[in-house]
Amino acid sequence: MRIGLVRLHTTVLEVGPRDGLQNEAKALSPDDRIALIERCVEAGVRRIEAVSFVNPKRVPQMAGAEEVMKGVPRVEGVSYSGLVLNRRGLDRALDSGVDEVNVVVVASDTFSQRNQGVTTAEMLAAWDDIAASAHAAGVPVGMTIAAAFGCPFEGETPPERIAELARRAEAAGAFEVALADTIGVGVPAQVRDLSRRAKEAAPSAALRFHFHNTRNTGYANALTAVDEGAAVLDASAGGFGGCPFAPAATGNIATEDLLYMLHRSGVATGIDMAAIAETGAWLGTLLDKPAPALLGRAGGFPA
Amino acid sequence: MRIGLVRLHTTVLEVGPRDGLQNEAKALSPDDRIALIERCVEAGVRRIEAVSFVNPKRVPQMAGAEEVMKGVPRVEGVSYSGLVLNRRGLDRALDSGVDEVNVVVVASDTFSQRNQGVTTAEMLAAWDDIAASAHAAGVPVGMTIAAAFGCPFEGETPPERIAELARRAEAAGAFEVALADTIGVGVPAQVRDLSRRAKEAAPSAALRFHFHNTRNTGYANALTAVDEGAAVLDASAGGFGGCPFAPAATGNIATEDLLYMLHRSGVATGIDMAAIAETGAWLGTLLDKPAPALLGRAGGFPA
Repeated sequence: MRIGLVRLHTTVLEVGPRDGLQNEAKALSPDDRIALIERCVEAGVRRIEAVSFVNPKRVPQMAGAEEVMKGVPRVEGVSYSGLVLNRRGLDRALDSGVDEVNVVVVASDTFSQRNQGVTTAEMLAAWDDIAASAHAAGVPVGMTIAAAFGCPFEGETPPERIAELARRAEAAGAFEVALADTIGVGVPAQVRDLSRRAKEAAPSAALRFHFHNTRNTGYANALTAVDEGAAVLDASAGGFGGCPFAPAATGNIATEDLLYMLHRSGVATGIDMAAIAETGAWLGTLLDKPAPALLGRAGGFPA
Repeated sequence: MRIGLVRLHTTVLEVGPRDGLQNEAKALSPDDRIALIERCVEAGVRRIEAVSFVNPKRVPQMAGAEEVMKGVPRVEGVSYSGLVLNRRGLDRALDSGVDEVNVVVVASDTFSQRNQGVTTAEMLAAWDDIAASAHAAGVPVGMTIAAAFGCPFEGETPPERIAELARRAEAAGAFEVALADTIGVGVPAQVRDLSRRAKEAAPSAALRFHFHNTRNTGYANALTAVDEGAAVLDASAGGFGGCPFAPAATGNIATEDLLYMLHRSGVATGIDMAAIAETGAWLGTLLDKPAPALLGRAGGFPA
């Protein structure tokens, strides 16, 4: 483990505006979502998953993606990502001016069919098409491999499956591959194993991880990912977010709690922890529920 | 980081009957505390902090330590520890038949005075006396260094202070030195640093760690401790326990959540995770509050 021995830098990608909000009972207006993004940018966040171009009838919380993209602050060095699952979504994403396209491919067939209505193989065909079109438009595209650590219907995801999907990402020129523990079952040994397999399968792509803290392993997984040299970690201000197929899921790892651990362990992120903690609390008032993050309750240290 | 690369074993010391209960609003009877201990032993736990020999007027939750010790199951290989702060406590501990004595020395003077009414230097003098007397009686004695990662009144604890205390532990023949993050402020880089300092200062003693998950770093800290070769980790069934000087403290790391992370990462403990999760839920019914542990809510995996 290198943490605490050398000075490291990790990019934290704020997913609050998308994964943090898409399963909340209360849908926030585009203006509120723009305000959330503004707060994150002011706090120093440089990558934000801002919007999702899924069908707003299926995910009303994500309606108005174009309006959100029109209102986000255009600051040098800040990159906005939009989630895309099909050609229609890509067209909307390109029209709205996202800086990156993020395509989610679910590693298990059952979960893929229930979540996106297609098998993994069908989604991979869509991936190839979306990636080619995005590249033709000059926009970088990454693949997020969902349920990479386990599936609520099929159990543990075979690690060979992750390598196979990462190879497909690499072949289509993905700038980044993300391994997502969508239902919060992953453990550090898996992070290490999958990290090495993904890097071998997709050597040109940056490696990103996405953790939920459903069984209290999220931060230990994040620590292991940094130790394995992962370039990017997803997190959500306040720790909001869940998964409709994992009802007890306690949300994404919270950005402020992640920053507390990383900064005090000598891993820089360029993000203001106190400002994100305030943002998490503010988001809680909008959503009418307390933030799952612990930092806002316990306070920073030293005070 | 070795986790996931080699097969490891870690001893988990169950502190639920003592640290888990001593700050709860509802005091459990000695019979309930014996039932908790019985459940832990049946689940495979082999070290248990069973009782505290502090003044029952000051800590009514710990009253009846002698009664608890009379009722615990005497099973081959199971060791019961009693917390001791002075000579009077040691006499009670020896009379009650504990297998180990645990002396808590607080690393910062302000916290020591508020918690135990003595300076750290005064407590160290008591430590020397208690250790000599315990050894004369043939009972092993260990030192727990409280507030090792930070103090609510003095801020970060200088790491040299921990080394100094560990040297005093070693000099008096401690079989174990524990570093306790009493208020839940520690981060992985500190675990690594303090672990190395303590091992150098007390090479004959086993190294134990005690974490609280107040700022969501508890499990990442535990992971780092195992990676550093720590022999023993404290945890509490259900994740109960707090600190009167850290009101937002969310309790000890939960035994069941720790086991989930360790077992699935190839670190054996010999303890039945499902049985401890049931015990955590059962303890919640006794205390009239839900267990902070997440495993009981989310369920194991694979199911």
